[in-house]
Amino acid sequence: MHQGFETKRVIIGPDGFKKVVDITVPKRVNLPTGHIDSTSLAQIPPGGSFVANDVEYYVFPCDTFDYVMHYLKRHTQIVYPKDGAYILMRLDISPGKRVGEAGTGSGAFTLYLSMAVGNEGKVYTYEQREEFYKLAEKNIKGFSKFDNVVTHNKSILDGIEERDLDAFFLDIREPEEAIPEIRKALKPAGHLGILVPTTNQVAETLKALEEHKFYVSEVVEILARQYKPVPERLRPDDRMIGHTAYMIFGRKIGE
Amino acid sequence: MHQGFETKRVIIGPDGFKKVVDITVPKRVNLPTGHIDSTSLAQIPPGGSFVANDVEYYVFPCDTFDYVMHYLKRHTQIVYPKDGAYILMRLDISPGKRVGEAGTGSGAFTLYLSMAVGNEGKVYTYEQREEFYKLAEKNIKGFSKFDNVVTHNKSILDGIEERDLDAFFLDIREPEEAIPEIRKALKPAGHLGILVPTTNQVAETLKALEEHKFYVSEVVEILARQYKPVPERLRPDDRMIGHTAYMIFGRKIGE
Amino acid sequence: MHQGFETKRVIIGPDGFKKVVDITVPKRVNLPTGHIDSTSLAQIPPGGSFVANDVEYYVFPCDTFDYVMHYLKRHTQIVYPKDGAYILMRLDISPGKRVGEAGTGSGAFTLYLSMAVGNEGKVYTYEQREEFYKLAEKNIKGFSKFDNVVTHNKSILDGIEERDLDAFFLDIREPEEAIPEIRKALKPAGHLGILVPTTNQVAETLKALEEHKFYVSEVVEILARQYKPVPERLRPDDRMIGHTAYMIFGRKIGE
Amino acid sequence: MHQGFETKRVIIGPDGFKKVVDITVPKRVNLPTGHIDSTSLAQIPPGGSFVANDVEYYVFPCDTFDYVMHYLKRHTQIVYPKDGAYILMRLDISPGKRVGEAGTGSGAFTLYLSMAVGNEGKVYTYEQREEFYKLAEKNIKGFSKFDNVVTHNKSILDGIEERDLDAFFLDIREPEEAIPEIRKALKPAGHLGILVPTTNQVAETLKALEEHKFYVSEVVEILARQYKPVPERLRPDDRMIGHTAYMIFGRKIGE
Repeated sequence: MHQGFETKRVIIGPDGFKKVVDITVPKRVNLPTGHIDSTSLAQIPPGGSFVANDVEYYVFPCDTFDYVMHYLKRHTQIVYPKDGAYILMRLDISPGKRVGEAGTGSGAFTLYLSMAVGNEGKVYTYEQREEFYKLAEKNIKGFSKFDNVVTHNKSILDGIEERDLDAFFLDIREPEEAIPEIRKALKPAGHLGILVPTTNQVAETLKALEEHKFYVSEVVEILARQYKPVPERLRPDDRMIGHTAYMIFGRKIGE
Repeated sequence: MHQGFETKRVIIGPDGFKKVVDITVPKRVNLPTGHIDSTSLAQIPPGGSFVANDVEYYVFPCDTFDYVMHYLKRHTQIVYPKDGAYILMRLDISPGKRVGEAGTGSGAFTLYLSMAVGNEGKVYTYEQREEFYKLAEKNIKGFSKFDNVVTHNKSILDGIEERDLDAFFLDIREPEEAIPEIRKALKPAGHLGILVPTTNQVAETLKALEEHKFYVSEVVEILARQYKPVPERLRPDDRMIGHTAYMIFGRKIGE
Repeated sequence: MHQGFETKRVIIGPDGFKKVVDITVPKRVNLPTGHIDSTSLAQIPPGGSFVANDVEYYVFPCDTFDYVMHYLKRHTQIVYPKDGAYILMRLDISPGKRVGEAGTGSGAFTLYLSMAVGNEGKVYTYEQREEFYKLAEKNIKGFSKFDNVVTHNKSILDGIEERDLDAFFLDIREPEEAIPEIRKALKPAGHLGILVPTTNQVAETLKALEEHKFYVSEVVEILARQYKPVPERLRPDDRMIGHTAYMIFGRKIGE
Repeated sequence: MHQGFETKRVIIGPDGFKKVVDITVPKRVNLPTGHIDSTSLAQIPPGGSFVANDVEYYVFPCDTFDYVMHYLKRHTQIVYPKDGAYILMRLDISPGKRVGEAGTGSGAFTLYLSMAVGNEGKVYTYEQREEFYKLAEKNIKGFSKFDNVVTHNKSILDGIEERDLDAFFLDIREPEEAIPEIRKALKPAGHLGILVPTTNQVAETLKALEEHKFYVSEVVEILARQYKPVPERLRPDDRMIGHTAYMIFGRKIGE
């Protein structure tokens, strides 16, 4: 078992300030009103608070959501929690499942998978670009509770090494090219989830899924609309994320 | 370990036809074009198909999503997968966590929780109305892979028996009344998720959370927008679910 | 000036009941709780009410919105008010403008245009299918206050007869084919609005607009989300219109 | 007739650059790549273009949308075109109508109204804060084609001077207080539209409408979702306006 998740704290301050800090690395953490040393931070109990220049800050153990949104280093567009959560549900991920993924990207969804399949499960993830591969490894090890991720530094177009996988998640530029390889790697009736940003990619992917015998269960986008948490003047935020990606879900038909 | 999930099959037919069948119960299953016996259905391999009156039907092992949406008996409004998935993410649920819930309702979210915390985790759920309590028990046992749910037939206003819970999910009519009890049951910095259908309830709940020292991390609604899976004429469905519920997330502050 | 709009009444009843009636046609109007004769209806003052079997009904002069949504005969998908309103704004329609349209369809948007450009303005509308052409004429004359619509029973691919139009609204299956003709009919810097249901059509239309020198100012969809008007339990409707159409707006570049 | 609208030009440049310029005021207009004098700009025909440092810019006569979004001076939150367009439709505004409004704010919706009711119509608008009143007058005269707006520098709580209005639009902080005055000013069955930013205000307003005998036809919010106009990679913008306001529509019941 990794311990990365135990070494991160999230600091909550005024006006939506949020910062994730690794308390094992001695450093000065700048705040909107002053600063705090990471060693002092480590002394604060979970849910406790401290004061800097008359302003109170709360400190929590960092959770997966905050780690991904506020700490994880990104070289690529990550899979947002709103999308990642729905993909986990649609791929029927639960403890013990064996799941494939390509590309790894910055490792955000790999981390969600790792946290969901637990010690009995396994995640096999493929990333062909070496710098992403290395970054993702670091990002995953920096938080996941479970030692269950196998990272491959190769393209899945060159072959998926595993067989009989419960589910596969695909997030590459031309997903239609990878469908035949994924078909080989999935067990019968295995779940497939694909994420693409454009409508043109959705159309191309749907054609490939039909050709390679996948049942398409859903094409969907998820919108998260946040509200200002003010009980006397309740209203949505002025601005919201308008688009991250379309998601396509299906299951393998036939042998 | 339960085996409920192994005994359900989902049949996929033309024009969006979808039906979940328990193959251990001998019965005739009606289809848009004819019928099939559940015993014949049991012989079809995962991802296989059969033909009824010249129309092909596909058969898959039932997943959690299809079980909740197309099989589970409902006496109450259930927590939809789009919302349930996001709640699991925001409550930071993973294998091994100990989670509380009230009310159980028809048990849909209890089932998501059970499937997410696995054999090492535990779900404690409270439901005061006896008929829902019994229905939920049946719904959960009919599918969950894990024997990890403790059901209480009582109101949480009469006290939560557990302590030091990692997270709590609240889905009752007047959530503001239950906040003090939940505060006692949660561990320091524990996660709280609340689901309510109306804006008035959001406002009341926010007031109670402030009073009882919870940090509110997010007030949000999740919209899932489905597309017709036709590559040459890609477009969203004509109608969509416009509203299920608002969700409020927070963490316990102080001891 | 037509008088069609003066002869229609809308009856509002319990549980969202709404019915538009022509009071010049003697008939019995069925209600959820009984009925009323159109001649009796004609006697009720604007904003007045009547009682049928102990239930109160309100009567208003019919407005454009109710006429289009609850009276106008449809052979085609109409332009919804939410979209029509935005198109009027984006095409900069005001009294006195000369505007072209194709196809007329059932005439809903033609009616919005007629009501917006007034006595000093003019609307030229093209519809090649004779049955739609006739239906639309009847629909428009049945309500518009202004005698300002010229209907053509022909395809615009065979030529637009007018020149120097302020704006053009295009709602046909393959809009990309009509762009060159519209270019000839519009005045310099004239406004163009196009409505299409699929993403594939948006892509094709954008290509044609670039080729034929139109500046694209916006590609947009409009979502209207309704709420239940209950002050103590304020919340959106359970279901909503998920999609009607995408809209593309532009202006003619060069001479 | 005013001529304000004839003196404004909109310049369209690369990366979404858009600027509205008054060509009667000699000045140097800064661009992303250089500049142009407003006097040179005045020579460019509608839909024409000019080049600044190898980059092409297009020039159009300014329309109402661009004037409101890119020129009009704001001291207040304005009514966005997406909302304004729908309000015009729901209030059944057409040439010749007599319409009231409060408060005037920066005059954006007053301008929409002025442009919609034309020479035969009339707009009566109330604004109690003198600096907004003056700003709005300037904003309206700077563009509207029609001399049809009467501005009052007073609160409508002190009385509306007009009677028998076709419609009224209300955009003040506590709309519930103004309902009785509006009731007096509207003709029988007259249309009322109210805009409020928070859910609490929606609830308060609904109570007042019921008390003062208005039929509520709709409570709604309008979302405009923009797409990047790239045919090969069609997708919505990353960010969108998440909320402007809720709108409530109704009609006066009884005398």
